[in-house]
Amino acid sequence: MPLRDLCPALANKAYFNYGGQGPLPDPSLEAITASWRTLQELGPFSTAVWPFVERETARVRAALAGLCGVGPHRLALTENVSSGCVLPLWGLPWQRGESLLISDCEHPGVVAACRELARREGLQIATLPVQQLCRSTPQAELPAAVLEALERHLSVDTRLVVLSHLLWNTGAIMPIPAVAQRLQVHPRRPWLLVDAAQSFGSIPVAEAAAAADIYAFTGHKWCCGPEGLGGVALSERLLEQAQPTLIGWRSLRHEAEAGSAWHADARRFEVATSCLPLCSGLAASLELLAAEGSVEQRLDRIRAGSRSLWNGLQAIPAVRTVLGEPPPAGLVSFSLEFGPSHAAVVQQLGDQGLWIRQLDDPDCLRACTHITTSEAELDRLLEALAALA
Amino acid sequence: MPLRDLCPALANKAYFNYGGQGPLPDPSLEAITASWRTLQELGPFSTAVWPFVERETARVRAALAGLCGVGPHRLALTENVSSGCVLPLWGLPWQRGESLLISDCEHPGVVAACRELARREGLQIATLPVQQLCRSTPQAELPAAVLEALERHLSVDTRLVVLSHLLWNTGAIMPIPAVAQRLQVHPRRPWLLVDAAQSFGSIPVAEAAAAADIYAFTGHKWCCGPEGLGGVALSERLLEQAQPTLIGWRSLRHEAEAGSAWHADARRFEVATSCLPLCSGLAASLELLAAEGSVEQRLDRIRAGSRSLWNGLQAIPAVRTVLGEPPPAGLVSFSLEFGPSHAAVVQQLGDQGLWIRQLDDPDCLRACTHITTSEAELDRLLEALAALA
Repeated sequence: MPLRDLCPALANKAYFNYGGQGPLPDPSLEAITASWRTLQELGPFSTAVWPFVERETARVRAALAGLCGVGPHRLALTENVSSGCVLPLWGLPWQRGESLLISDCEHPGVVAACRELARREGLQIATLPVQQLCRSTPQAELPAAVLEALERHLSVDTRLVVLSHLLWNTGAIMPIPAVAQRLQVHPRRPWLLVDAAQSFGSIPVAEAAAAADIYAFTGHKWCCGPEGLGGVALSERLLEQAQPTLIGWRSLRHEAEAGSAWHADARRFEVATSCLPLCSGLAASLELLAAEGSVEQRLDRIRAGSRSLWNGLQAIPAVRTVLGEPPPAGLVSFSLEFGPSHAAVVQQLGDQGLWIRQLDDPDCLRACTHITTSEAELDRLLEALAALA
Repeated sequence: MPLRDLCPALANKAYFNYGGQGPLPDPSLEAITASWRTLQELGPFSTAVWPFVERETARVRAALAGLCGVGPHRLALTENVSSGCVLPLWGLPWQRGESLLISDCEHPGVVAACRELARREGLQIATLPVQQLCRSTPQAELPAAVLEALERHLSVDTRLVVLSHLLWNTGAIMPIPAVAQRLQVHPRRPWLLVDAAQSFGSIPVAEAAAAADIYAFTGHKWCCGPEGLGGVALSERLLEQAQPTLIGWRSLRHEAEAGSAWHADARRFEVATSCLPLCSGLAASLELLAAEGSVEQRLDRIRAGSRSLWNGLQAIPAVRTVLGEPPPAGLVSFSLEFGPSHAAVVQQLGDQGLWIRQLDDPDCLRACTHITTSEAELDRLLEALAALA
């Protein structure tokens, strides 16, 4: 059965908010409840249950690490993207006066965390402007333009660069491997923190994930896994130099000893008890995605949908798309130059069972296409938008 | 139907590891899956879904805050006890040279987190010895003995005291409200961090939770909720003075603005996306517990079981109980003076479908009784122990 038909969320609406949260396929929910039943049958806390817990954890860790192109020792499981970004960040060795260079397209949560870190450690914050580049630069030239902006905004004090892989607001892809390469020849070797909330599960990520120091993602958006489980791929040098901040029994090599060393691998950033059945659910969702084709094949389908939507939007006079070309992935951002407010549009479309979202910066609407998006859904959305605008 | 019969985990074994993890009743698993189905029907990400998310979150927050005797504004939802202990801790204003006074009965995870905090902030660590007091002092005199030990070990530099409410290893109850009162007249007004992993859901906690600065608990032990959801009750003065460390959209008053103020209430310590269905599951478990009687009535039943077990253990020559009297709650710790190793005992009992656990400090075995514990289970455990020892 095609993935779309396995998702009850898609049965009663036209859904375009994959960048907010993906639908949970029925087999994944079944895997979650089956996991809970096994936990109850074997445990919940018993010598008999640990091999099952270890197997389910190792299975999802291996699957996620494989997608990131790193060994499982570099992959920590986290509750969400924010945890994945921030947990390793706080444990890095900072020195007063160092500077954090943050793109102007980052999620407010990550930015707020960096600001608080800067306040406590006496760091500077600088902005890497990429939003306007996304609007004005042809996609083929965007990597070079971003690298040029990076060159202009790096300073001798830069110790961290924060840049999303697939920008949540404009929908453009950032040249992460090239950025990583550039940072390697900077005298301070700045850390590279990549928010992969939108890229993981929607575009190939292995090269970028392996090149970043912190590549943090979630399973509940483009992977169609359950909410509450994500991961972060960490570089070898980060594993050598960063201390954990949130610490619990899972961070410790010998969980019964407070004086124990941390786990040498990425598990030092895992904390304590979390919801094991979510591992079973995410593993099931990843298998369902893989059954739909390779990540490249799936991106082709995602882009066919976003291209179709982008093209259709050009025909609506009031609409202006944020990108000047069809998007490189599944995020289609656009604004209405006249007509109802963006908030009103979201609500009026919702009343018709069509779900898109509004973003504040830039002030725009965002509709996402996934491999589960149908032509009929796209037609409905375009018709409804044309009627509203 | 009595709670015991609603727990599949209890159907095929004699279970005594409630202090590790409680069984998940079928109605709670059903509430979890129903919650997931509602999320899919309404969303997962839509204007239609937020009222449901807000309602389920508010419902469990109110229930947990009610049990803690605090307003919902003082209750943050967390993934586990470690998060609840550590998240607010890192955000407190520390000064070099201040001292953390940590009891010798704390969980290794919390101790390791305090050590890392001390390393980064240049703090001292001192130990509050209570383990030996538990063994040697009649329970009626234990509160006074603990307060006397506190008096001896407080210094002018003490800025934090870490003490569990119900000690996970000895099973004794600490006089948290009296400790809080004592700290209020210390010139530095030390913060009081209470690990409530064992107390919450097993003994009345309202007075202690309202008196502590950080009272961190989990739903997956004595409350029989799902793993991956707990909470922390925070004092008003902590809410005024502590900054969040892990930061995401849920920490911010206006989630779309990085420059937004934190939530003024305990939500500033919540991070980002977590597993909403766990809220529905924990709320269901709390209702099932409440249907079994008040917390005082339930403690009576828990104690009837632990008393029966403690008494039975006195009749086995090789056994020495850690406490010299029947336990004040459901944790029964004991050691074998001769016979097989503790690890071997756990495994051999497990082979018979009897589940207890081993602890390292003190080197002992621990069996827990809950309101779901049956006389027949206790008899089986005592017989098996007598045969082994």
